[in-house]
Formats: sequence, structure tokens, C-alpha cells
Amino acid sequence: MMNKIEHIGIAVHNLDQACDIYEKLLGVGSYKTEEVGSECVTTAFFKTGDNKIELLQATDEDSAIAKFLAKKGEGIHHIAFEVTDIYAEMKRLSDEGFQVLNEKPKKGADNKLVCFVHPKGTNGVLIELCQEIKLL
Amino acid sequence: MMNKIEHIGIAVHNLDQACDIYEKLLGVGSYKTEEVGSECVTTAFFKTGDNKIELLQATDEDSAIAKFLAKKGEGIHHIAFEVTDIYAEMKRLSDEGFQVLNEKPKKGADNKLVCFVHPKGTNGVLIELCQEIKLL
Repeated sequence: MMNKIEHIGIAVHNLDQACDIYEKLLGVGSYKTEEVGSECVTTAFFKTGDNKIELLQATDEDSAIAKFLAKKGEGIHHIAFEVTDIYAEMKRLSDEGFQVLNEKPKKGADNKLVCFVHPKGTNGVLIELCQEIKLL
Repeated sequence: MMNKIEHIGIAVHNLDQACDIYEKLLGVGSYKTEEVGSECVTTAFFKTGDNKIELLQATDEDSAIAKFLAKKGEGIHHIAFEVTDIYAEMKRLSDEGFQVLNEKPKKGADNKLVCFVHPKGTNGVLIELCQEIKLL
């Protein structure tokens, strides 16, 4: 079950410039920046209501974000939904015919386990599932 | 001030097919469909957490949504932020250098006054401002 939209990911060329723009737009500054080695991105997070905006800049030209920027230019890259049990949700979506892109969840930004769903089955929208990693 | 993300708008070719897909994805059905003559679209709304997903199908080939679909294909079309005073927010954003696309707010879907901000100034993201129309 999808609990809520956790964040919207936006691919940008220059994170510093984009942070200035989104600070003006939203009226609040970024509360966190984080480099995610596994995805070859640097990210900045903004809070808005019950959601977050995540700006993503590529740190490697072979990364998914660099390829997206080269092909489509700057813009919305994905919508991430918060789930309670990412394994159960991956199975549910797979059983419903969606193409789940990861066999197992992987470590994403912001202390999350994440998994992606192919945009071909969701009207062109790249969907991320994310679940907070809880430490014992 | 942006209160929160009110909805995310997704442009689709076939609203009925897309509604089936998003019902499976989100685990809830659409709670409302609405034709918006001024925008030449038919829309369907889904609730997810504190936000909505709006699917948009063009009803006229000259509409903004039809042009978006022809140029970019299906996918996320805009992010809409709820504001308390749309006139004040339009002025604030204009003063900040954003290109506000409407001189005055117009009537949009879901009983809202709406206004758009050009994506060139927001890293490729079309931003909508929306304010609930309150009847006396």
C-alpha cells in the first residue's frame, strides 16, 4: 500500500543554482544535502507541507540522472511513495503487472530503502517506493 | 507562501486506461472526474496521503495538454502548490523574478483559482499555484 507521496525528485544541472531558485519558490531553504554514491548523485532536500522536494545533480556522466538530463533536460525525474513494507509492495505491484526495476531494495538517499518501477507501465512516470530504514 | 503540494498533474492519452493503472498503483480508485472546458481537458483525481494525483486527457488537439503529449509523450505535466492568497503569491513570485504566466488567476479544475509559472525559471518544472474558491 502506498502511504503517501514522500518526495518529488527533480533533475538539475547545477545544484547550487537550483537550491537558490527553490528556496525563493518555496520560501524555505534546503534542510539537507547528501551525496549518494550508489546513485552517483548529490541531492538537496526541501520540506513543503507533508512532502519533500529532492533536487538531484549527477556526479558521474554515466549515472541515470546524467542520462536523463542529456535526453530530456531538467525537470521532474520521479515521484517517490512512502511504503510500510517495501518487499510486500514490490511483490504486490509485480503481481499487478508493473515492472519492478530492482530485484531487491537498495540503499537510497535520506536513510531509505528504495526501489523503482518502470515508467512504461505508469504513463511515463518513474515511480520510486521508499521505506525508512529503522535502526534497532 | 506555498502551503503544500496540492496535486501532481500527469498527462495521459487515454484517461480510462490510466485510471485503471493508477487505481492498481495507488490501491484506491479515482474519487472524481471533471471536464474543464477552459483548459480543454478531462481530469480524474486520486487521493494519496495529504495530496492528490490528477490525470489529464486532452479534449482538443490545440490544448496545452495535447501539445505536451505530442512533444514529450505521457508523463508528469505540473506540480500544483496550494496557496492562501493567490494574488499575493503571484506578486511575490513575479518580484522574485519568476515568470508568472497569467495576469489574473483563472478557474481551474476542482473548484480552484489557478495560475502557472513558466518552467524555464524553475529547472524545467511547470508550477501551478492554486487556491480553493470559497463560496459565501
